[in-house]
Amino acid sequence: MKTIYLDHAGTTAMKPEVLEAMVPYFVDHYGNASTVYRIGQDARAAVDKARDQVAKALNADPAEIYFTGCGTESDNWAIRSVALRMSKEGKGRHIITSNVEHHAVLHTCEYLEQLGFEVTYLPVDENGWISPEQVEKAIREDTILITIMYANNEIGTIMPIREIGEIAKKHSILFHTDGVQAIGQLPVDVKADNIDLLSLSAHKFNGPKGVGALYARKGVKLDSFLLGGAQERGKRAGTENVPGIVGLGRAIELAAANREEHARKMTEMRDALIHGILETIPYSRLNGHATNRLPNNVNISFEFIEGESLLIMLDMKNIAASSGSACTSGSLDPSHVLLAIGLPHEKAHGSLRMTLGDDNTMEDVKYVLETLPPIVERLRAMSPLFEQIKGGERLV
Amino acid sequence: MKTIYLDHAGTTAMKPEVLEAMVPYFVDHYGNASTVYRIGQDARAAVDKARDQVAKALNADPAEIYFTGCGTESDNWAIRSVALRMSKEGKGRHIITSNVEHHAVLHTCEYLEQLGFEVTYLPVDENGWISPEQVEKAIREDTILITIMYANNEIGTIMPIREIGEIAKKHSILFHTDGVQAIGQLPVDVKADNIDLLSLSAHKFNGPKGVGALYARKGVKLDSFLLGGAQERGKRAGTENVPGIVGLGRAIELAAANREEHARKMTEMRDALIHGILETIPYSRLNGHATNRLPNNVNISFEFIEGESLLIMLDMKNIAASSGSACTSGSLDPSHVLLAIGLPHEKAHGSLRMTLGDDNTMEDVKYVLETLPPIVERLRAMSPLFEQIKGGERLV
Repeated sequence: MKTIYLDHAGTTAMKPEVLEAMVPYFVDHYGNASTVYRIGQDARAAVDKARDQVAKALNADPAEIYFTGCGTESDNWAIRSVALRMSKEGKGRHIITSNVEHHAVLHTCEYLEQLGFEVTYLPVDENGWISPEQVEKAIREDTILITIMYANNEIGTIMPIREIGEIAKKHSILFHTDGVQAIGQLPVDVKADNIDLLSLSAHKFNGPKGVGALYARKGVKLDSFLLGGAQERGKRAGTENVPGIVGLGRAIELAAANREEHARKMTEMRDALIHGILETIPYSRLNGHATNRLPNNVNISFEFIEGESLLIMLDMKNIAASSGSACTSGSLDPSHVLLAIGLPHEKAHGSLRMTLGDDNTMEDVKYVLETLPPIVERLRAMSPLFEQIKGGERLV
Repeated sequence: MKTIYLDHAGTTAMKPEVLEAMVPYFVDHYGNASTVYRIGQDARAAVDKARDQVAKALNADPAEIYFTGCGTESDNWAIRSVALRMSKEGKGRHIITSNVEHHAVLHTCEYLEQLGFEVTYLPVDENGWISPEQVEKAIREDTILITIMYANNEIGTIMPIREIGEIAKKHSILFHTDGVQAIGQLPVDVKADNIDLLSLSAHKFNGPKGVGALYARKGVKLDSFLLGGAQERGKRAGTENVPGIVGLGRAIELAAANREEHARKMTEMRDALIHGILETIPYSRLNGHATNRLPNNVNISFEFIEGESLLIMLDMKNIAASSGSACTSGSLDPSHVLLAIGLPHEKAHGSLRMTLGDDNTMEDVKYVLETLPPIVERLRAMSPLFEQIKGGERLV
């Protein structure tokens, strides 16, 4: 039986159309995009086309798009470069972010704290949401950057980006957003959303791994992060990853063309999963906002269960899901996002993230709804805590 | 007619075997290598295999190999991380490098100078060579890092890496080498060469663009450069570029298996090109060491000629060559490498780099030797300086 893949927030399969667009640039049109001769100019034209595709999808100008090696690089670049430059210009050393950001943002902020920057980590509410008012209240004279993710990678909550962007603009503070999970799921418009800098990653929307982009609004002074050659208008050194860039361009074009239909289909499956699980499995709760969430995100905590065991048993039934972010697997710490929304350690450990994609169907949803309850029941039967509850003592 | 591609130091076409190895990881085995379920474990196994392939090619241990987004990232990471850490530990702030390094190394050193580090840029001799004695003399009490490239990307001169490695070891100073041009052309053995850190890039040896690696000897304390998730044993964040990593592994395996035959074939074509040109075109000179040079590198200066015009005319005759590093094209400055070996500006501007690869044949060499002299003659006929020489006045 085929695997039901429910970890699209971790990574996605590349669409065959994307591979098709890339293949000519591996073996035939393999030129270096920064050269004079014609083979190089083919590569240059392909990179330019991809830049147009990305710009169009974000409502940006092609000159505002820089290709990078991944979303993490985009986050590191945007935050470090803006912070160091603004500080050098004497504008201040205060940054506002949230306590549910991806580690690419959080660890970069912690690094800047070591260099003497001050960071306000805004606490989210029980739904994982930051209010625009919280952001505005946190602004100080020396605030140089606000970095708040577009939507959360673990619990799917969508942040009030447009309102935060307006506040940042009003106070003349640069606004960066980690858009890695939003692109392909939500209508991101950098102009309407008042975004100065946005990070994205191709493999989250059926593009290739190993390529990302940074949008930086015209007028934002951006220093290089990777130093070396004069690629990307002198802003990002390293030979252009032509096939990867071509794949990113094609993938974002496909995602944008199909976004509304995709969102409708995802939302339908998402809600069927959420309601089906909450109705049939006791001691389960939805994490993240009930409606203001990514169309493809389901995150549910099951009391008296270890997420890791649940994943292994689901895998044996050909369901590939996640207990949180793939980037933190291998760590035994509970998710910082689940702790931030107020879950105690034991509930945070027993959480399951299922993120849907174009390859999923309502048949998959049905299979999960049949398969999951007996697994949860079996795992709970092995839990001493759950036995006590059945005996009438509610401990947690 | 097909293009005769002579810019393999800029980039190379991917070998079909490399693409074949990568393709399954784009669409079918697309899992995130940092996850629990089986699709992710397929990806993990593929990354592990590639790590073994790279380790074997360098005579390193797999645990000493970290995958990155490009050679430039590897250079930036190695140099910045070592410098900042050693400085923090109070070991000193002095770095030794050469004045012919790739800009990924030079610009990183200049960045560190802004942070208060001191950098000695050793001057090369007229062949572009650094002597081990120069390196040893430059060592100070507070020297923390020596970074000298394995072989030069523009003029092909091979540095005395093993001897420099010995000196570094004797003085307990870390030794990094930019091996981007050497891998695939020379027998690089990190143990025998006493190398602590080595950067490499897949697309220079018929692998994919957008993926590189950093070798760091066990015991070298390496801080992260890209901050975020726990990938690459917590040292390099960002979702693993599984197909790219698989392609890098396969490409380095093929290059290592074929290296001696490749070197023999390249050397034969290289020498035929060099001798053919020097014998038939007056006022031409070879740049770089006559014998101690990369087997695939030809770099010749023609007096009274603009390199850019020469490239365009060669391109019209279906020959793709370069006037220096692709990474600096778009810049009107003459090559820092050619200036470093003592060429005056006008000669540095009139230089031509031809770098050979597996797809070239002696037929190609013959075609170049027929095609180049009339082009040089025609360009010189348009040069007022050359007219004066013909009239008996030697000006330059």
